[in-house]
Amino acid sequence: MSASGFAFETVAVDGEARAGVLTTRRGPVLTPTFMPVGTQGSVKTLTPDEVAATGARIVLGNTYHLWLRPGAEVVGELGGLSAFMRWPHATLTDSGGYQAFSLAERRTLSDDGFVFRSHLDGSKHLLTPEEAMRVQGLLGSDIAMQLDVCPPAAAPREDVEAAVAQTTRWARRSLAARRPDQAVFGIVQGGLHTDLRRRHAEELGELGFDGLALGGFSVGEPIEQMHEALREVAPRLDRARPRYLMGVGTPGDLVRAIAAGIDMFDCVLPTRNARNGQAITRNGPLSIKQAKYKIDAAPVDEACGCPCCRGGYSRAYLRHLFVAGEILVLRLLTQHNLWLYGELVRKARESIVAGDFAAFSRGWLEPR
Amino acid sequence: MSASGFAFETVAVDGEARAGVLTTRRGPVLTPTFMPVGTQGSVKTLTPDEVAATGARIVLGNTYHLWLRPGAEVVGELGGLSAFMRWPHATLTDSGGYQAFSLAERRTLSDDGFVFRSHLDGSKHLLTPEEAMRVQGLLGSDIAMQLDVCPPAAAPREDVEAAVAQTTRWARRSLAARRPDQAVFGIVQGGLHTDLRRRHAEELGELGFDGLALGGFSVGEPIEQMHEALREVAPRLDRARPRYLMGVGTPGDLVRAIAAGIDMFDCVLPTRNARNGQAITRNGPLSIKQAKYKIDAAPVDEACGCPCCRGGYSRAYLRHLFVAGEILVLRLLTQHNLWLYGELVRKARESIVAGDFAAFSRGWLEPR
Repeated sequence: MSASGFAFETVAVDGEARAGVLTTRRGPVLTPTFMPVGTQGSVKTLTPDEVAATGARIVLGNTYHLWLRPGAEVVGELGGLSAFMRWPHATLTDSGGYQAFSLAERRTLSDDGFVFRSHLDGSKHLLTPEEAMRVQGLLGSDIAMQLDVCPPAAAPREDVEAAVAQTTRWARRSLAARRPDQAVFGIVQGGLHTDLRRRHAEELGELGFDGLALGGFSVGEPIEQMHEALREVAPRLDRARPRYLMGVGTPGDLVRAIAAGIDMFDCVLPTRNARNGQAITRNGPLSIKQAKYKIDAAPVDEACGCPCCRGGYSRAYLRHLFVAGEILVLRLLTQHNLWLYGELVRKARESIVAGDFAAFSRGWLEPR
Repeated sequence: MSASGFAFETVAVDGEARAGVLTTRRGPVLTPTFMPVGTQGSVKTLTPDEVAATGARIVLGNTYHLWLRPGAEVVGELGGLSAFMRWPHATLTDSGGYQAFSLAERRTLSDDGFVFRSHLDGSKHLLTPEEAMRVQGLLGSDIAMQLDVCPPAAAPREDVEAAVAQTTRWARRSLAARRPDQAVFGIVQGGLHTDLRRRHAEELGELGFDGLALGGFSVGEPIEQMHEALREVAPRLDRARPRYLMGVGTPGDLVRAIAAGIDMFDCVLPTRNARNGQAITRNGPLSIKQAKYKIDAAPVDEACGCPCCRGGYSRAYLRHLFVAGEILVLRLLTQHNLWLYGELVRKARESIVAGDFAAFSRGWLEPR
């Protein structure tokens, strides 16, 4: 264990799939793990207790958002992100680069970093690898991410090569600027070019990162191509360190990525889709606003143990709340969806430990 | 106790203030009581458990809203309002008249009832005393309200007299249309004309209502004039029945109305103001969005035991959530405000039983 209190141990493997334990200053996190997204310091609509009840022991905070509002100094002054949001477990923060590129206005990229204007007030900011580490240090997350360059899915190979090279240079600068009390993950880029991905994984693997992430997936490419690349690249990420697939995905995506050897995930899908009225179930998505649920007394999923389903809220009531614009339904569907993700990674882990991950996997991937 | 399972008993008096017990099919309700407003079948942002934790044992549902969406038949099909919204305690429904007049379009009043067009889709509806009872019967509330005519504060005396006369005619028709399993309250009108109020209270007191309400207050008149009228009228409402002051008010208004002999209240103030970022405290309102709270680590109210204050959420965090548009803060402030109202009526009751309501009252009404 390093000065950051961070460690990773694999406790079982089944094929390429791994069951492990992340150790953080704020307690252990069993892997595979799904990190609910708490963009602005809140997993939208839920209290920390409710998030933890879904099984989550680590949440993701967005550096870009928190840096601009309320400001990293404010969060730091109030004891860091975990204390600020009353989340007693671990946090991971992204570098801010992805949002600086996708949300901000008039952004430009140089060897130094990103210059961009805030989407909130137009104020000008410079995000360098060092600044990303400084801001994440103020946020006090357990795991910080290096600043990287994430090319779009349609980028030509030479742009992807340039992004990889820039990301490697920033990787070294990020590690030079790291705080001893924070784990830092490197980010492997390379798009769908598996030769670039493999070379980048090797390059970053030689540096002192505490974990390795795959960035630049789920950016618009056909999902089958992502899984093909994952099957080739994920097993080649250093086995001794945790592997994190950024921004992915559906339950089926998680199952397939776990099969490829991924340990950590984050995605807005369960929370965002809940707020759009979509409940995710083992039998596929259920759009609660549909007229066919108008007098349906059944819960979203009879077999589900979440506070929404176990609480006896009928589809008819949930539909009414959604159509009427009532906030309660957004909470209940968010709990339901995160419960499903929490159960998925918990059962995936159990099946890896039991050596029957393949059977578990079929249960999720085959149509019923 | 009648076939509706409804009864009221006064257990202590202190001056005009009363401590009592409402008995309903869904359990006892201690009075004075505050009924959180669940307009569309949800006390906005909260679960039933969270509402009950504030001390509430009865909530109000709006007949107008539920009638139009999802429809009284839908709610009836799903077991009535309590079952529909998973609220195991008592419910009271208004008659729909107030909203039919204030929200709906092109409404006209005749001796038969209100004709209006829905604010949702323009569909035409006729709300008669009998229809109001039928709809509330489908909603299955423990207490139904008669259809009444509520004139605006500025109405000339002859309009108020006409409203009183119409309300009395509708009172008789409502009682003729009542279901045996539902309590029904009559509504005393008369504006600020205390002679009209007193006469109307006598008229309605001769009918077989289970309780008597004061309507037509808090409709724009100076608040001191309301309290003056209340002091004269409330003590003259039949002592054997519960007295309900509709749509009032601030904590100070509740304390003064309890002193005048009121037992039941409802108001959107604590829930609506919460959603506008206002926490109500013993020391006055606190607007959480103010810049002065930016790095304020204190809870909303150190002395408060609600999930927001006891949960350790700082003013700085709540302010951040509000400015960032996060739903969690609406929940937390709603809990805080309803907690304060719940505690106010609980402590008012304790002080009436102990015979020191005057001291309790001063604690709330005198500036600190």
